[in-house]
Amino acid sequence: MRIFIVGAAGTIGRAVARELGARHDVVSGGRSSGDVRLDLAAPDSIRAAFAELGPVDAVVSAAGNVHFGALEEMGPEEYGLGLRDKLMGQVCLVLLGRDAVRDGGSFTLTTGVLDRDPVRMGSSASMVNGALNAWVRAAAIELPRCLRINAVSPGVIEEAMPDYGPFFRGFEPVPAARAALAYAKSVEGAQTGQVYRVD
Amino acid sequence: MRIFIVGAAGTIGRAVARELGARHDVVSGGRSSGDVRLDLAAPDSIRAAFAELGPVDAVVSAAGNVHFGALEEMGPEEYGLGLRDKLMGQVCLVLLGRDAVRDGGSFTLTTGVLDRDPVRMGSSASMVNGALNAWVRAAAIELPRCLRINAVSPGVIEEAMPDYGPFFRGFEPVPAARAALAYAKSVEGAQTGQVYRVD
Repeated sequence: MRIFIVGAAGTIGRAVARELGARHDVVSGGRSSGDVRLDLAAPDSIRAAFAELGPVDAVVSAAGNVHFGALEEMGPEEYGLGLRDKLMGQVCLVLLGRDAVRDGGSFTLTTGVLDRDPVRMGSSASMVNGALNAWVRAAAIELPRCLRINAVSPGVIEEAMPDYGPFFRGFEPVPAARAALAYAKSVEGAQTGQVYRVD
Repeated sequence: MRIFIVGAAGTIGRAVARELGARHDVVSGGRSSGDVRLDLAAPDSIRAAFAELGPVDAVVSAAGNVHFGALEEMGPEEYGLGLRDKLMGQVCLVLLGRDAVRDGGSFTLTTGVLDRDPVRMGSSASMVNGALNAWVRAAAIELPRCLRINAVSPGVIEEAMPDYGPFFRGFEPVPAARAALAYAKSVEGAQTGQVYRVD
């Protein structure tokens, strides 16, 4: 398979590229590195990336930003980052990338543990992850040409604990290589409309 | 209790006003009718509404618009309506109304069955409902002064079947009066961070 991994330079993206790269032809994508450059928050750059990329069998997204902040400091602007970037960026990757994916191919998006297990400062991530999980189930029943779509919702990643640890006390970290297995299940399996939790 | 019901003229809002009005002082709110006028998509109008309203013990929202359309016709603009109106409108109702609600008071928002049971044309509603369910669970742990927050996620409302029936074939309709019980549980009970499904 030819697989486009967006966010391939991130902690999860690198692990997914390692897992899938062992058996498939991986094209890396990212904002500031990778074979193909794109900014999820800019639909034009997504369009340009797919024009450059050519046909693929799978698109994996392990990218997307949200604002972390106390609820009392959050307003439309702070939530707007996550809605434009992690939510609509990944949604647009599907809407604009659909024609580049071969019949029966797949999209795999990334959500995360805050969809079900909230922490202080994390309400934007919770919102966006919940939106994506529900949207993936909805999009799955409307995609044409047997295209498939799933989400992976990993726990806090072990390799990211030096950065995120203080927000996630008591959470059992998930090694990126374990999370990467769920992406392989989505890409190489046959299921659609699933949210794979990796806890 | 003094209870502000936003969307009080809608199918669900009327039933909630009937249920809660039997025991409490209800103030109705709406875009084009009600004691207090407000447009959920306009934060300034939410601020003005709460200034006019004065202190309350509970805020119930049974309002919010989304665009219904086939996935292939959906883009950032079509999803934008639901994100601005049903999602961020209800979120802003909490963020901007927080100070108007007395200690221990509650917010109750409305999501819906498409969060878990998608239909064609409904991907925006799925997205927004999933976002709100997860956000409510996250906001609950950060609200001050023992304020509470829950969501009600009703099935397709029986009284709305003449309009929505063709989109919801095979769904068992829920009478608005049954859905209204979940709002009473949220307002008059003591739970927080819950999503009450009414199927």
